Amino acid sequence: MRTLQVDLGERSYPIHIGSGLLSRPELFTPHIAGRQVAIVTNETVAPLYLERLSNTLQGYSVLPVILPDGEAHKNWETLQLIFDALLTARHDRRTTVIALGGGVIGDMAGFAAACYQRGVDFIQVPTTLLSQVDSSVGGKTGINHPLGKNMVGAFYQPKAVIIDTDTLGTLPPRELSAGLAEVIKYGLICDKPFLPWLSSQMSALRGLDAVALTEAIERSCAAKARVVGVDERESGLRAILNLGHTFGHAIETHQGYGVWLHGEAVGAGTVMALEMSRRLGWISVAERDDAIRLLRRAGLPVVPPVEMAPEHFLEHMAVDKKVLDGQLRLVLLRQIGEAVVTAEFPREVLDATLSTDYRALADQLGE
Amino acid sequence: MRTLQVDLGERSYPIHIGSGLLSRPELFTPHIAGRQVAIVTNETVAPLYLERLSNTLQGYSVLPVILPDGEAHKNWETLQLIFDALLTARHDRRTTVIALGGGVIGDMAGFAAACYQRGVDFIQVPTTLLSQVDSSVGGKTGINHPLGKNMVGAFYQPKAVIIDTDTLGTLPPRELSAGLAEVIKYGLICDKPFLPWLSSQMSALRGLDAVALTEAIERSCAAKARVVGVDERESGLRAILNLGHTFGHAIETHQGYGVWLHGEAVGAGTVMALEMSRRLGWISVAERDDAIRLLRRAGLPVVPPVEMAPEHFLEHMAVDKKVLDGQLRLVLLRQIGEAVVTAEFPREVLDATLSTDYRALADQLGE
Repeated sequence: MRTLQVDLGERSYPIHIGSGLLSRPELFTPHIAGRQVAIVTNETVAPLYLERLSNTLQGYSVLPVILPDGEAHKNWETLQLIFDALLTARHDRRTTVIALGGGVIGDMAGFAAACYQRGVDFIQVPTTLLSQVDSSVGGKTGINHPLGKNMVGAFYQPKAVIIDTDTLGTLPPRELSAGLAEVIKYGLICDKPFLPWLSSQMSALRGLDAVALTEAIERSCAAKARVVGVDERESGLRAILNLGHTFGHAIETHQGYGVWLHGEAVGAGTVMALEMSRRLGWISVAERDDAIRLLRRAGLPVVPPVEMAPEHFLEHMAVDKKVLDGQLRLVLLRQIGEAVVTAEFPREVLDATLSTDYRALADQLGE
Repeated sequence: MRTLQVDLGERSYPIHIGSGLLSRPELFTPHIAGRQVAIVTNETVAPLYLERLSNTLQGYSVLPVILPDGEAHKNWETLQLIFDALLTARHDRRTTVIALGGGVIGDMAGFAAACYQRGVDFIQVPTTLLSQVDSSVGGKTGINHPLGKNMVGAFYQPKAVIIDTDTLGTLPPRELSAGLAEVIKYGLICDKPFLPWLSSQMSALRGLDAVALTEAIERSCAAKARVVGVDERESGLRAILNLGHTFGHAIETHQGYGVWLHGEAVGAGTVMALEMSRRLGWISVAERDDAIRLLRRAGLPVVPPVEMAPEHFLEHMAVDKKVLDGQLRLVLLRQIGEAVVTAEFPREVLDATLSTDYRALADQLGE
C-alpha cells in the first residue's frame, strides 16, 4: 500500500492506494466518529463491492443507498434519494457517508455529506480510474444543472480517500480510457516526464497491469494533491486541472449528460486546447500531434461531435465557472508540462480553434 | 448607526444596525467584489424595498430574483429558481447574492450562495425582527425537507449583515411577535438582566418604538455574535441558541411548514422547555410563570397545538439535529439566564412535559 497526504491544515487527509484495501477495516475506522455509516453507491457497483465493504464495517449500523448509474442522474432528484434515506433511517450529525463508486457517486455523496444537517463526515472509495486519479481528491462536490455542469455544489474535503486498485478489474474498457484522459492531463499541465512513461506503458495500462496502474494512480494523485494543497478553493492555480474541461463541458452539456463520458469529453476537449495552444505559437505542431496520438492510444475520442458548431461551444462556454466579469478564461499550454489560465488570447484564435476540422486533423495523423 | 462585529477569523463580518441603511451604498460596496449582484427577495418584500435597494446599487448589474413568500416555499423547488435565474443571467463566481427579506429568504439565498458554483459572496439584509435578531447572523443556511426542518443546508457566513430598522414599519404584528420570541430567548439563555428590561419595554416594542427596537436588536445580535464566535459550527455551546426549537420544530413539521410561524412555534416550544426545566427542579414555578407571561405579552402562543399528542412530538424530535448516536439532547434552563444542552434527564420527565395540559397552565396564569 502507498499513502499520500493532502495538506490542507486541519482539513488534511490521507490517500491510500493498493490492492485489497476494501477489506481492511483499520483503514476506515479512524475516520468514522459515530456508529452510523451510509454507503452511497449505484446499481452497477453495488452487486460487485457493496457486500465486501459492508462486511469490512461490521460493528457499525450500515445503511446502503443505491442510486441509478450514470451522469444523467447527477441531479437534485437523485441527491434527494440520499437525504430521504438518511432521514428515514434517522442518521444524525455523527454519521459518516462513504462514496463507493465513480466520479458521479463521489460528487453526489460528497455534496450530500456537505449539506446533510449542514455537514457530516465522508470518505471517498473511488472504484473507477477517473475517480481514483482525479475526482475523489480535492473536495470538489456537486450536481449538474440543466444549464451547466457542476454548477451547484460545495468545496468539501473527505476524511480519507481509499483506493482499492482491484476494483479496476471490473471496469469497462471505455471507462478505463475515460480515466486515462485525466492521467494524461497531469503530464500535459505539470509533469512533462510523465508523458514518455505513459506512452511506454499505455498497453500495460489498458491491459490492467497492476504495477503500471498503481504507479499511474499514485503519480496522478500526487500531482493533484500538490495543486489542491496550494489552492483549495480554485482562486488561482487549481484551475489548471481543468485543461480540456471548458471545451469538454460544452460537449457534455450539448450532447446531454451521460451520452459522452466525462473523460471522453475531456479527451476531445484536450485536443481543442492543444490546437489552440499551437495556434498561439506556444507549442509546436509535433508536440500537439504527439499528445493527440497519446490520447488516441488511450482509446479516447480526439474529434468533437461533428454536429457541434462554434456557436454551440460559445453558448455553453459562456456559463463556465472560470468566466469572471463576463470574460472567458481558458486553460492552455504555455508549453508541454506547463498550463496557464488566461483570458489573454485574440478572439479570432478561439474562433479558429472552434472551426478547426478535427476529423481531418485526426485522419492525417494516421494510426 | 451601531456596528457590531462577528469574530470568526478570516470569516469575520460587521453587523450594521440603524435607520435608513438601505439607502447607503457605502455600506454595501466594500462587500461586493464583481459587477454582478443578485437581490433575492419575495413577493411581499419586493414591492416595499426592492426598488430602494436597487437604486442604492446603481452602477452594478442588478438581477432581482423574486420568490413566493413563506416557510412552505423553503424547499428545493424554490431554491432552484435562484439557480435558474443566476445561470440564465450568466452570473459568474464573482457575483454577490443579497438576501432582502425575512428568515426564509436569508436561509435560502444564503444556501444558494453557498452552493452556486461551489460558493459566491452574500450579504444579509434582514427585514423582519426575527431575521434581524437571529437568523441573519451566524451563517446557518438551508432548506426544509419533508421529514425535517433545516435538514439540508450549510454553515456559510455572509460578508455583512445590514439591518435597516425602518423595514419593521411594514411588518405585520404577528411577525413582530414571532421575532420577539427569539429576543426573549436571549434573556432566558444568557442574559438574565435583559428580561426585566424587555418586560418594561414590551408595549414600546410592540408599538414599534424605534429606540426600544434598536436596543433590543443590538443586544440580541451581540448575544448571538458572542455565542457564534465561540462555536461557529455548533459542536457545543451554539446549540443553546435552540432553546424551545426542538419542541418548536416538531410543531412546525407536524402542522405543515408555514401554518405556525417559526417564532410562534418557538414561543410554545419555549413554554415546554420552561416546564421541563421546572419539572427537573432547575427553575421555580414563579420563574416559569414570569417567562410564560412575558411570552404571552409579546403576543405569542403559549400552548402547543391541542391535537399534538406526545407521540407526535417524539416522532419529529427523533430526527432533530441535536440527536447524537440515537440520544435526544434538549436545550433546558439550569437557571434563568443559563441554558444547557443535555441528554441527562429521566425519560419520565420528558413524557410528563409532553403530556402537560398547557391550556390549563396558561388559563391559571390569568392576564
